[in-house]
Parts: sequence; C-alpha cells; structure tokens
Amino acid sequence: MTETFDAVDIIRTKRDKGTLSPEQIAWTIDAYTRGAIADEQMSALNMAILLNGMDREEISHWTTAMIASGERMDFASLGKATADKHSTGGVGDKITLPLAPLVAVFGVAVPQLSGRGLGHTGGTLDKLESIPGWRALLTNDEMLKQLADVGAVICAAGSGLAPADKKLYALRDVTGTVEAIPLIASSIMSKKIAEGTGALVLDVKVGSGAFMKDERNARELAETMVALGKDAGVNTVALLTDMSTPLGLTAGNAIEVEESVEVLAGGGPEDVVELTVKLAEEMLQAAGVADADPAAALRDGRAMDVWKSMIRAQGGDPDAPLPVARESEVVYAPADGVLVQLDALSVGVAAWRLGAGRARKEDAVQAGAGVRMHAKPGATVRAGEPLMTLLTDTPERFDRAKEALRDAVVIAPEGSRPDRRLIIDRIA
Amino acid sequence: MTETFDAVDIIRTKRDKGTLSPEQIAWTIDAYTRGAIADEQMSALNMAILLNGMDREEISHWTTAMIASGERMDFASLGKATADKHSTGGVGDKITLPLAPLVAVFGVAVPQLSGRGLGHTGGTLDKLESIPGWRALLTNDEMLKQLADVGAVICAAGSGLAPADKKLYALRDVTGTVEAIPLIASSIMSKKIAEGTGALVLDVKVGSGAFMKDERNARELAETMVALGKDAGVNTVALLTDMSTPLGLTAGNAIEVEESVEVLAGGGPEDVVELTVKLAEEMLQAAGVADADPAAALRDGRAMDVWKSMIRAQGGDPDAPLPVARESEVVYAPADGVLVQLDALSVGVAAWRLGAGRARKEDAVQAGAGVRMHAKPGATVRAGEPLMTLLTDTPERFDRAKEALRDAVVIAPEGSRPDRRLIIDRIA
Repeated sequence: MTETFDAVDIIRTKRDKGTLSPEQIAWTIDAYTRGAIADEQMSALNMAILLNGMDREEISHWTTAMIASGERMDFASLGKATADKHSTGGVGDKITLPLAPLVAVFGVAVPQLSGRGLGHTGGTLDKLESIPGWRALLTNDEMLKQLADVGAVICAAGSGLAPADKKLYALRDVTGTVEAIPLIASSIMSKKIAEGTGALVLDVKVGSGAFMKDERNARELAETMVALGKDAGVNTVALLTDMSTPLGLTAGNAIEVEESVEVLAGGGPEDVVELTVKLAEEMLQAAGVADADPAAALRDGRAMDVWKSMIRAQGGDPDAPLPVARESEVVYAPADGVLVQLDALSVGVAAWRLGAGRARKEDAVQAGAGVRMHAKPGATVRAGEPLMTLLTDTPERFDRAKEALRDAVVIAPEGSRPDRRLIIDRIA
Repeated sequence: MTETFDAVDIIRTKRDKGTLSPEQIAWTIDAYTRGAIADEQMSALNMAILLNGMDREEISHWTTAMIASGERMDFASLGKATADKHSTGGVGDKITLPLAPLVAVFGVAVPQLSGRGLGHTGGTLDKLESIPGWRALLTNDEMLKQLADVGAVICAAGSGLAPADKKLYALRDVTGTVEAIPLIASSIMSKKIAEGTGALVLDVKVGSGAFMKDERNARELAETMVALGKDAGVNTVALLTDMSTPLGLTAGNAIEVEESVEVLAGGGPEDVVELTVKLAEEMLQAAGVADADPAAALRDGRAMDVWKSMIRAQGGDPDAPLPVARESEVVYAPADGVLVQLDALSVGVAAWRLGAGRARKEDAVQAGAGVRMHAKPGATVRAGEPLMTLLTDTPERFDRAKEALRDAVVIAPEGSRPDRRLIIDRIA
C-alpha cells in the first residue's frame, strides 16, 4: 500500500524544528496505530518532540488524531450534566474517592475513568480494589446504568478510548520520552475528550512527588490542557496544587480508602478535605451548578450515602473490614522541633517499595501495604516520637523502604514554619 | 540477567544534555548489539545525540565501543606501510578507482574496504561490478595475499568489522538520525580503525551533492574524525573538497569505470586527475613516503599496470568491453552563455533514477545507467548544444530523471565565471 507521507520526512521536519501539518499529524497517529510507522521511528519522533516542542495547533491536531483512533463515549442519554476530574498524580492522592460521590450529591454525573499506579504514584483502581468484592471493569452499559442510578462511577477506562495513546504511552515509558509536555497533554486530554465529559477539572500537581517538579512546567502543562479542552468543547479548568508533601496521612491502598471514608464521614485530614471541597466546587461550577455547598454534604452524610451505593453497585461491600498489612515498623523523629519537610517523593517511593505500588504493569500490589504518617509539616515533634508507620506483608522490604526515607524528614528549631500553599493557582 | 545500566537512564542523561560515562557508552553499544537495548530505545538515544551532541570524549568512547563489537584486522605481516582513503560520498566520485593502484605504485599497501551506494551517491563496489567477472567479496586471507602480491585491493568490508555499526546504521537510516555528526564520525572511523590501516586520508565532501551541505558541518565532521583517528594511533588527515558539481564528466557505474581508466591512461577530466593526485600525495605522505610523484605514475602507465593486476586478481577482465545502456536521451543547453552551475545533487538523483543507484539495499543497479556530462561549470555553451546524455536500460525512467534535472543547470551571460575551489581546506 502506498502511504500518503513518509515517516522519515516527518521525523526530519520535527528534528529540524519545523511544524507538522494537520494532515501529517493525522497520518502519523493513524499509521502508528496500524503499524505502518515502526516503534523505532515513533520513538525518534517523540524525542524530537520532547526536545523541540510542538505549537498549540500541532498539539491540538495530535490530540484530535488520538481521539480519532478509537471510540467516543456519549452521556447525552443521561439527561444531566457530567463532570470529571483528572489528577496528574501524586503521593497519597486519594481525592477521587471522596470527590466523585460528593459531586454526584448535587445531581451532576461523574464518569471517572481511572488507571492503575505505576512507579511511586498510586492508582485509584488499586486503592478501590482493596475493598472486598469491588470490581473495576464495567461495560459501557453498566457504566451508563450506574451513572443514571447512583450518579457516580469510578472504573477502568475501556481499551476502546484513544487506543493510539495506549500504544504510544507504553513506548514513551521505555524510551525516556514520558516527560514531553505536548505528549503528556495530548495523552490525558485525548482520553478525557473521548470519554465525553461535559466539564473537566484538572488537578496539576507540582513538587517532588509530582510528575512536574517545578511550577513553570506544571503551569505550561495546565495551560496546554485547558486550551485543548476548550477547543474540544469541554468546559475545562485547572488547579495547580502542592505535591511537595503527601496528601493526608496515608500513602498506600486500603489505608487511603480508610482515610477517604473518614473524609466522607465528615472528618479526615485538613488538606484532603480542603482539596476535595475545592475540586468539588470547581466541578460543580464548570457543570453549571450554582450555590452548592459540598462541605455540608460531607458533614451531613449525603456524600457517604452515594459512596456506599457506588461501591455496592460495583460488587463491593463498603462496610467490610479492609485488608491490614501483616507486618509494621515505626520510624521515629530524630530530634525535637518543627517538622518542616516530609518529602512526597521519598514517602511515595517507600510506599511503593513496601508493596503498595508496582514496578512493572504485570505486578500485583499489596492491599495493606503503605506508609501511615503521624505528623505532617508544621507539626511540633519530640525526638523518639513515632513519625511514620511502615506497613507490608513482606518484611524483607522494610530496609529498602527506610533507605528511601533517609532524607525525607527535616526538623527545624521550634518556631519555624513550613511554607505550603495547597492550592497554588487556578488556570481557566 | 541483570544489566549494569538502565537504558532509560542513559537516554534521559543525553536527553537532559548530560555526559555519558565511558562505562555507560561501552554498555550501550554492547547491550544494543546483544539486543538488551531495543531499537526504539536506541533510536530515541540517537535523536537525543543528534539534537544535544556528544563531546569529543564521548565520541571517542562510542567509537572504541563500536570497534570492540567486532574483529580487528592487522596488516603487520605485510611488512609495509598501509594507507586508506575514505570519502564521505558524492556524485561522480570514482576517485578510489584510480587512487588505490596509484598509491600502490609507491610500495604502500592500500586496503580499500568499500561499500555499495544508497540514495543519490554511488558506491565504489557497484561501479567495479560493472567490470565483467570482477567480484567484491574476498576472505581476509585473499585480501592479505592480494595486498602482498598486487599492493592494492578494493573489496567489500567483511561483516566482522564493527557489527554494531551495521545494526546502528540501518536503524539511523529509517529514523531520521543519519545526520548526527558524532554518529557519522564514529561510524566511519570505527570501521577504518578496526580495518587496521596505518594512515588514513579523509575526503570530506561539501556542497549540494554531499552529505554535508555547508562547510561548517563538514569542517566539524572532519575535525572530529581526524581527532578520533589520531587517538587510535592512525595517522589521519582530512581534505574538505567541493561537491557542488559532480566530479568528472560521468555519474553512474560502467561510465565511471571508463573515466577512471582514462585517468589511469594519463588522460581524463582535470578535476578527477587533480583530486586523485592530491589524495595520493596525502596518503603517501601520511604513510611516510617522501618525494613520490603520483602524477608521473599516471602518465607513464605504472598505475595502469597495478590497476590491471588488481582487477585480474579479483576475477575481472580489465580489457573486456564494459556494459552499455540500451537507451539514451540528450538534454540540451537552453541558452547561450557560460555554464555556471551543474548541480551535483540533481545529477546524482537523475543518475539514481535512471537505475545507477538503488532505493533499497536489496535492489540491483544497472551497470550502464547514469548521466554523461558534456560540459562542466566554466564552459561556454550554445543554446541547443548537448549538455548531458541520460543513459538507462529502462526508458520509462527518463521522465523522472529529467524532472530531477529541472533546476540543475544555470547559464549566465558570457564573461561570467563560476567560483569553484576543488580543494577547500586541509585538516590535520
């Protein structure tokens, strides 16, 4: 078969800082999905994109082409507004769990297609799978029915959405080209746009535990994604939020579900509550619901009711005891003073090494493993006081987890105050 | 098996403008040769090298690692000096044919391992294969015997020399990463150093028909290769020479052999003679032979005698008639004036399209095909006078060849003089 373009010409164009035409981009994604562009050609192109960039137009065409590689979902039959949230990933980021039922309280459907964790950031589906009986895989019909009946669903993204992205992501993962902002933005947005949500709130993390370590890159990513969403008719807003320290007091699977349930019961750590409420407000506003009071819906149990229905609808028992790790080990404060740093990346890597995460996508995770924190930045601590409890079923993992935590903690003289703004900026 | 390094770390290092250690480079080449680094990883690394460069140390280690991937030859048993020439490739570049026997006249052995053509530049082996009976493939023993008996050999490089280069070049060819100076330099020099020549003269072409279109890049490539050669104990010199217009009056296979024989008979086009003599002087000087007069050895038939022995030693009949193309078509001068441009790339592409070159390495070439030029830049021409004769066995190729030549010729008013320095610079 004669191809419309030549892969080497396209690679050369981007290598030499040229601009790819809409037709070249559409062909590239289609040809790669069909196998007419080889992996080694696509990885060279990805590296050229990472180093030389793509302009807004190119990113938009790239995203459109990825969407066109698969099916599109449509929630019009629900007859209500839809809103979704996407986090770029962080440590202890369980926000989706309380957030989805909370937003559904106000009559907005939340079709939350989620993924599994890879590396030091946890995966929403891994966390929920620690609930006995709960299943992540739903058919499109089951998903629609649950959105109609319960109002919220958190489930695995079907393989039909943007299949080009799946193939491309696996390639980027092994070729050092994950960190290209145009490719990150189009990867996230192609799936969200194909999913068919009406409103989208992006939680773009900044800091050691995030994908974007510095604010400049995070801001560029956020701005790129907001523009892509708007171009596609999705009402999109982004928050830049702090990921220098973990969210809440838990990083793991079952222990994060437990903390999420505390939030749904009106309690839980302050930062998790604040971010959950803020994101709920943004989602509701983007979906056109005015004057909602999400904080009240956490306090009065309405969000908890939706949560329980949501878990039951997917076969889970929301009242069953959660798995507990077989072994634990405590990390103590080395000095008196104020905890001014509890590094997100270190805690994330420790939780991962304890078994909460996976190194390869075929690996299983331990439901009970993770890190339970007893103090967060700002707390006054005394030498010898417990700072963290490490949890695992496989105690041979403790040493490498503690190694990851070696420089995680900074204790400063009393009177010091850590500087943390949870919500750094809003980009709309 | 546990690997010493991680391919993704190495890609990231170069992507982020870092420097690769000698150990990382040695592992990279070895792991790629073994298949422990995948093609898609190597192509991403190649693109990062192309865009971010390598320093001299890195290029030197890269070259050493490529040499270590295969066997090394050794001509010590010959008991005489050895010298080789490498051209970066151009249109009508048949210089190796008269040059190898010419240098051998003076007692210096010339082990000229050569390649086939790909794209618009011809291959030395393709040209010689138009001689009835001549064969390119020799064993190492046959090669040594011929060097001892005749003094010069032009044959195919065995697959044992720098096998990593073979694999890497095939990858670069399909991934838009051929044009990376560090990779070009290490590709050429790894084979020449592994071949074991004592002296090496590099003919680095500059201009439209060359790989390097501008002098700055050509100079950088030349300097890089000279440094690599010297580091490896090979007495290396480079000439920058013009490739804005073809060398001589022929571009093809049999017609270039014919022109080479004219030079060996003391005639032939001025530029071919000049460059052949200059390169012979450089090779002889680098090999430690003082006071040689190569021009005399062309005039008095000594070089021709070596040529005939060399062709006979490889089964060829130097006196047999050469193949002639079945069809020809003449291109006429469009105006009166001075021919100030006859573009090398255009002529090279035309010869290639006529069948003298190959598009894929599996393709065969036509021995008789090519372009015979009747005037070169500087000549005064009259409208309607023949400028070129196109030769092919397959006349359906004429149209696309003429298309390639559309902008090849520039004729200026009488009194104009084209500016061509055949030998631009010498780098030692």
